[in-house]
Amino acid sequence: MNLPKAMKALIQKHDGYAGDNERSGFSLEALDPYVELAEIDLPSPDKGQVLMKVARAAVNPSDVMFIKGMYGQPLRKGLPAGFEGCGTVVAAGAGAEGLDGMRVAFVAGRSGFGSWAEYAVADAAMCIPLIDGVSDEDGASMIVNPLTALAMLSIVKEAGSKSFIVTAAASQLCKLIIGQAAADGLSAIGIVRRDEQIDLLKGHGAAHVLNQKADDFDERIAEICRVERPLILLDAVAGPSSSTAFHAMGRGARWVIYGRLEEEPPVLHEPGELIFLQKRIEGFWLTGWLASASEKERTAMAMQAQSNFASGRWKTDVTAVVSLDDASGRLPDALGEPNGKVLLAP
Amino acid sequence: MNLPKAMKALIQKHDGYAGDNERSGFSLEALDPYVELAEIDLPSPDKGQVLMKVARAAVNPSDVMFIKGMYGQPLRKGLPAGFEGCGTVVAAGAGAEGLDGMRVAFVAGRSGFGSWAEYAVADAAMCIPLIDGVSDEDGASMIVNPLTALAMLSIVKEAGSKSFIVTAAASQLCKLIIGQAAADGLSAIGIVRRDEQIDLLKGHGAAHVLNQKADDFDERIAEICRVERPLILLDAVAGPSSSTAFHAMGRGARWVIYGRLEEEPPVLHEPGELIFLQKRIEGFWLTGWLASASEKERTAMAMQAQSNFASGRWKTDVTAVVSLDDASGRLPDALGEPNGKVLLAP
Repeated sequence: MNLPKAMKALIQKHDGYAGDNERSGFSLEALDPYVELAEIDLPSPDKGQVLMKVARAAVNPSDVMFIKGMYGQPLRKGLPAGFEGCGTVVAAGAGAEGLDGMRVAFVAGRSGFGSWAEYAVADAAMCIPLIDGVSDEDGASMIVNPLTALAMLSIVKEAGSKSFIVTAAASQLCKLIIGQAAADGLSAIGIVRRDEQIDLLKGHGAAHVLNQKADDFDERIAEICRVERPLILLDAVAGPSSSTAFHAMGRGARWVIYGRLEEEPPVLHEPGELIFLQKRIEGFWLTGWLASASEKERTAMAMQAQSNFASGRWKTDVTAVVSLDDASGRLPDALGEPNGKVLLAP
Repeated sequence: MNLPKAMKALIQKHDGYAGDNERSGFSLEALDPYVELAEIDLPSPDKGQVLMKVARAAVNPSDVMFIKGMYGQPLRKGLPAGFEGCGTVVAAGAGAEGLDGMRVAFVAGRSGFGSWAEYAVADAAMCIPLIDGVSDEDGASMIVNPLTALAMLSIVKEAGSKSFIVTAAASQLCKLIIGQAAADGLSAIGIVRRDEQIDLLKGHGAAHVLNQKADDFDERIAEICRVERPLILLDAVAGPSSSTAFHAMGRGARWVIYGRLEEEPPVLHEPGELIFLQKRIEGFWLTGWLASASEKERTAMAMQAQSNFASGRWKTDVTAVVSLDDASGRLPDALGEPNGKVLLAP
């Protein structure tokens, strides 16, 4: 195949780790401080790797944390950002020839040449060939959110909890969690910030949905916790309403933080609950979770994700598709829109 | 033996659990809202129990939490408070005759007739006969603090940490922890609130001691954490300085809260650390820990405690001995004194 010598990409402007960004929260106020549009040499796949022409790239919360230097992985100046996408394999290194010409979902990362570019490199092991029924929109978000959703549900099940709470419940990730939970017979309790999201999430299968801004939020979450006895709080917000929900939960409850959408940090009003009710507070990080999971678990989850999209149980709601040229101007506002996913179309 | 029909005791004024006391912190602002001096009928020991004439009773932080209704155990109106003490067995129920006449350290509790009284009842299994070399002062605090110290050190060791941090490090409990840690080859990093406690604790074997009020506290705790790499923070304070110490700790650190001496609740400034550095926050409660430990572990710990006191490695520093009559007036202030234990002398 005739490939160009160069490509457009959104490349990282910094090396290493964040400094003060740690305190700036997990939302994206602007793109320019972190990445810039540039033309760089086309990469070539190494042994066991493939080069894809990117069809669609995801813009996940983990990407935002990464480019801000908050993802626990070092930035690499001059290399394209973007963990996830889908595209067609246009070149394959030794041992990866079987994927040549296939349409795949992929996670970049280790190669350093991410998905926010016209071409990206991924290990063959991090590619999932896509069947025809799966659209590019679904394919671009086939791995990170789905595996996060299934991993978090495994935490709920291992805790022996028939019920759990999710904050920022109208996110694309939480819609996957809620849909799968309903199929598994688990009661999802969703916390949102807009009344119009309540019916939306009940339609996805949530057992209860509360607006954290409602006057009776504190009483209602307490009442629901008394009835449903959730043991796990899956929290993307890490703010005052998260504290309230955790306080409402009973003995043995675990507050599992995986994001931080609130600027105001949470306060631990009742340290005594950690002592006498054996509650605890911890984090969830997909990279760490995957590293500790077995190959069998990871494969089973990837297969279930593909099957959920193919069967229509899961669907990616796309709120915006943005070109690389327009990313600097449009991406921050597009990410501020509720209820769906933003994709890049290189 | 000729026993009186009645006795003086500090009895609980409430039933059940706390309400708003949960938010009032773990210090004792006054005794009168919780217990009162009264004359009540002398209890008699049931099967497997003994009646002791109390020589000295301990006033532990757990007693303060208990009488305020914050200890996860229901209050029992009209019964004497006090978990721990030492005294001479003056009557024994069936099966406990072997203890008759012996001087013992004991934990009351299950019987309901606590140690803050002229006479107390304990299960024979919760009594440790005292050898002559152990004073009443040491005997009165032979169980709760020592077992807490040894249990917490087992957490440090199981985490594979060669180093750990203790807050409120000049407490009687922390002096036991620090002394045993030095014997076990572990580096204890103590955080205190007074400069004069620094040399005191270095004398007990602490590797580092910092005053949390010093201007350079943040930098020094960060520097020490870089060198010593502690994984466990044993925290009786649960305040802003605890947050600072936790932030200074590295990957995998655990913040183990067992008390709350600060009114100002801790803030979780960096939820991202829970996610990307796999840190977590939990509680420690001796009652829960003992319930999950094996009989063999509990027995080994009780033997090590007695041996540590007999050998002089451990010693109880007593700051005040208060009579039952004077308790209402003197106990709150006496508990505010640093560096030692307050005992009741019925």
